[in-house]
Amino acid sequence: MPEKSLAELAAIAGGIVRGNEAAVITGAAPLEDAGPGDITFAADRKYFGLLSTTRASAVVVPEGAENAAGSLDLIVVRNPQLAFARIVEVLRPQYLPGPGVHPKAEVHPGARLAKDVSVQAFSVIEDGAVVGERTIIFPGVYIGRGAAIGADCVIYPGVSIREGCVVGDRVIVHSNTVIGSDGFGYARDSGKYVKVPQRGIVRIGDDVEIGASAAIDRAALGETSIGRGTKIDNLVHIAHNVRIGEDSALAAQSGIAGSTKVGSRVQFGGQVGISGHLNVGDDVGIGAKSGVVQDVPSRSVCSGIPAIPHTDWLKAQNIYAKLPELRKKVSELEKRLAEIEKKHDPK
Amino acid sequence: MPEKSLAELAAIAGGIVRGNEAAVITGAAPLEDAGPGDITFAADRKYFGLLSTTRASAVVVPEGAENAAGSLDLIVVRNPQLAFARIVEVLRPQYLPGPGVHPKAEVHPGARLAKDVSVQAFSVIEDGAVVGERTIIFPGVYIGRGAAIGADCVIYPGVSIREGCVVGDRVIVHSNTVIGSDGFGYARDSGKYVKVPQRGIVRIGDDVEIGASAAIDRAALGETSIGRGTKIDNLVHIAHNVRIGEDSALAAQSGIAGSTKVGSRVQFGGQVGISGHLNVGDDVGIGAKSGVVQDVPSRSVCSGIPAIPHTDWLKAQNIYAKLPELRKKVSELEKRLAEIEKKHDPK
Amino acid sequence: MPEKSLAELAAIAGGIVRGNEAAVITGAAPLEDAGPGDITFAADRKYFGLLSTTRASAVVVPEGAENAAGSLDLIVVRNPQLAFARIVEVLRPQYLPGPGVHPKAEVHPGARLAKDVSVQAFSVIEDGAVVGERTIIFPGVYIGRGAAIGADCVIYPGVSIREGCVVGDRVIVHSNTVIGSDGFGYARDSGKYVKVPQRGIVRIGDDVEIGASAAIDRAALGETSIGRGTKIDNLVHIAHNVRIGEDSALAAQSGIAGSTKVGSRVQFGGQVGISGHLNVGDDVGIGAKSGVVQDVPSRSVCSGIPAIPHTDWLKAQNIYAKLPELRKKVSELEKRLAEIEKKHDPK
Repeated sequence: MPEKSLAELAAIAGGIVRGNEAAVITGAAPLEDAGPGDITFAADRKYFGLLSTTRASAVVVPEGAENAAGSLDLIVVRNPQLAFARIVEVLRPQYLPGPGVHPKAEVHPGARLAKDVSVQAFSVIEDGAVVGERTIIFPGVYIGRGAAIGADCVIYPGVSIREGCVVGDRVIVHSNTVIGSDGFGYARDSGKYVKVPQRGIVRIGDDVEIGASAAIDRAALGETSIGRGTKIDNLVHIAHNVRIGEDSALAAQSGIAGSTKVGSRVQFGGQVGISGHLNVGDDVGIGAKSGVVQDVPSRSVCSGIPAIPHTDWLKAQNIYAKLPELRKKVSELEKRLAEIEKKHDPK
Repeated sequence: MPEKSLAELAAIAGGIVRGNEAAVITGAAPLEDAGPGDITFAADRKYFGLLSTTRASAVVVPEGAENAAGSLDLIVVRNPQLAFARIVEVLRPQYLPGPGVHPKAEVHPGARLAKDVSVQAFSVIEDGAVVGERTIIFPGVYIGRGAAIGADCVIYPGVSIREGCVVGDRVIVHSNTVIGSDGFGYARDSGKYVKVPQRGIVRIGDDVEIGASAAIDRAALGETSIGRGTKIDNLVHIAHNVRIGEDSALAAQSGIAGSTKVGSRVQFGGQVGISGHLNVGDDVGIGAKSGVVQDVPSRSVCSGIPAIPHTDWLKAQNIYAKLPELRKKVSELEKRLAEIEKKHDPK
Repeated sequence: MPEKSLAELAAIAGGIVRGNEAAVITGAAPLEDAGPGDITFAADRKYFGLLSTTRASAVVVPEGAENAAGSLDLIVVRNPQLAFARIVEVLRPQYLPGPGVHPKAEVHPGARLAKDVSVQAFSVIEDGAVVGERTIIFPGVYIGRGAAIGADCVIYPGVSIREGCVVGDRVIVHSNTVIGSDGFGYARDSGKYVKVPQRGIVRIGDDVEIGASAAIDRAALGETSIGRGTKIDNLVHIAHNVRIGEDSALAAQSGIAGSTKVGSRVQFGGQVGISGHLNVGDDVGIGAKSGVVQDVPSRSVCSGIPAIPHTDWLKAQNIYAKLPELRKKVSELEKRLAEIEKKHDPK
């Protein structure tokens, strides 16, 4: 593992050292696990209490932590989580395969590989496909006819990118994810399903990351698209002709049905489902496990199945658990009322 | 791309041209995106309003659209979506690999490949496996010992079909789907799980299509079976010994627990879950995200967790969102009643 | 198929023959499907009624079944399901590839394979990886740099085990599962996501089984861990830094968000979701489709979204379906009350 001085790390993190600039840092660890030689971080005030007991050699902190930190060596920054991410990148670099086409890869002569591309064993790159500079294709990847992968991408083992799909620059796709599978589209003919040809593509913007075993269907015609900077977690399903904006984040096992549009800076909890042909605006939050069946306006938060405004859902679900009490109270009221009615009209 | 005259496309679609039979069509696109040279379709009355503004060169329409279509060239058919599917198949044919066994495939000498089978690089076909005529095996596919794949199938990259499983004719399996993984079956022995051997198979009927990254477990003993014409979307889980009828459709991320029987012509919304050992009848609809915990009679629709008749669920969920109001009203009634009780019995 | 005498099978099952010890058994089948030559089992009293009609040649039963079984040949055991599992293992052995490295596999010279390891075609084992004795690596598997796989494991086709991950002995991983994908971790920088390096590992204990197409993310730093004997079904998502205890069972399509701790002997129904940074105790049961948003104490059972104690949920969901009735009753009470109020205060 590389070792760095605190001063070097402060430069990487864009922060200021308070303490021993020459302190040697060899590792990075969470606040509670860090030991001598490690750097760690305290994201905010909530964690300052742990500073008195950490065994770390240095801590990345926001301004205002200095008192709580006692004599600890510090790097003071605006955004400790971001600074720490940069430091970990340097202290614990990821091993990635170097450039070159492995003799056991199968690259069609009609494919075009830019400079310094890495294609590992048992990967297939079909005719007309294009791979941008420095992109790394791990083993067992399939890149279909005419697909285009940008520069500086990392495509992990077992990924399948079907014909004609377009992937931007600096995209990361984790193992066994599928991009460009056929959409689930059928016409009916006397009670039987007849396949509607799925001839569109998937377009993935720059700086997108997609988790493991996700599935993003190609459009029937036109494009399924994922906007720049959007992050998609494991086992997410994106149906044909869905469009997602920029800088959105979809947690694991969420699914979006066909032709729905999702805006930018949207956040999905895990296991969310969105019906087809809907519009979800920008800056929307959707609670985990929600089922969205109507349009969601920008800058709103919703939850529940079906999803309703989050604050309404909070109130409703709170009463849900107490429904037996409510029903009991209604029965009591009924009895008391009957008692009074008898007095009024004793027969 | 191929080009066709409107008369040729009408013959393919089983329809009648109204307008210029010689019009040359080079592409297919949705109603709103279509431009000159494109054919598009209007499925029903709902879309007729768009006919006045479309830039398409021709439109596939049902009878009764002629007035709304003005001077547009038309193909008039009974089922526009079906007709359009057939036209797209011709205008935008899918590229598929030709017959032959790639030198980098690994086909066991004891496997039997019928005429014109295509086996692409890095696919494995084990001893005793059989592959029917014209079936296409994309790269990186695994076909286990003694498995049998029918004719005219398309098996996309990364699919795993385990030993002994049987797949019908004209079956399409999308990337990274698994057929024949072990069922989740254990005996208990002093608090520990002991694996129950999973020695049955999966049987897939003709004309089935299975999406990407789905998982269909082999039976413990006997068969897990998917009936003819049934369509299964991405990331669906089918447990051991499940039986599904014909012409059913299961949307993405649904799951069926062990030994449940699902009938024919059933439709599941997305993210549905069905408990084990249940019977779901024919012609059943199950709302997205429902959790079915008891048998569902044929020709019924259910929704909710746990699932109840859909109309009951619609009413209940409508009140759910208004539970705070309901509770408030009960509290008010209680106060008003107490007021009256005091008058009756003032102490 | 092997054939065994009833006496031999009784020895394997740890039971006692009642009837013809020399009876020859050639197959194993469920109670209702078994025919001549087959052995079957009746787990408990519930199934004794079927004993009078089974066509099986022998039945594994618990003590107390003798009367219901008439003249059937029996093996009497303490735990029939467990005994039958052992018998099936012998009567229907699984074919598994023999030891040796396939010439079309790609094993880095810096990888260490123990005795009798099987590495099949198109699998990749990277530098520094270790594989224990008798472990079987099916085709198309990826084992990353420095990963360590124990002895007697079975790794099915298409599995991806990323760099540095550690897998115990006797672990079974089904097709297309991913172990060690990056966790879903980002820092925010002016509205954009910046990747937090995921440099920890996944540690899988002995005797774990993981279904098809599951995804288990590596820790950001430190370890994601799955304890000895735990069983994980298809399409399950385990986020970074999750820790699961021993002998737990997670049904299909469940998901656990980052840093949550789940205890030992826990059982999840299907499609369960657990929020991040929670503690789920030992011996906990979680109903299918539940969404857990707070800590769950040991030895409790919960259900619902959000999850509440299971008995409370049963009561609440029972009323849920009858909410329209409840609301109607409240409206009636209101009318009756207004009637009385009018009499009291007639204006």
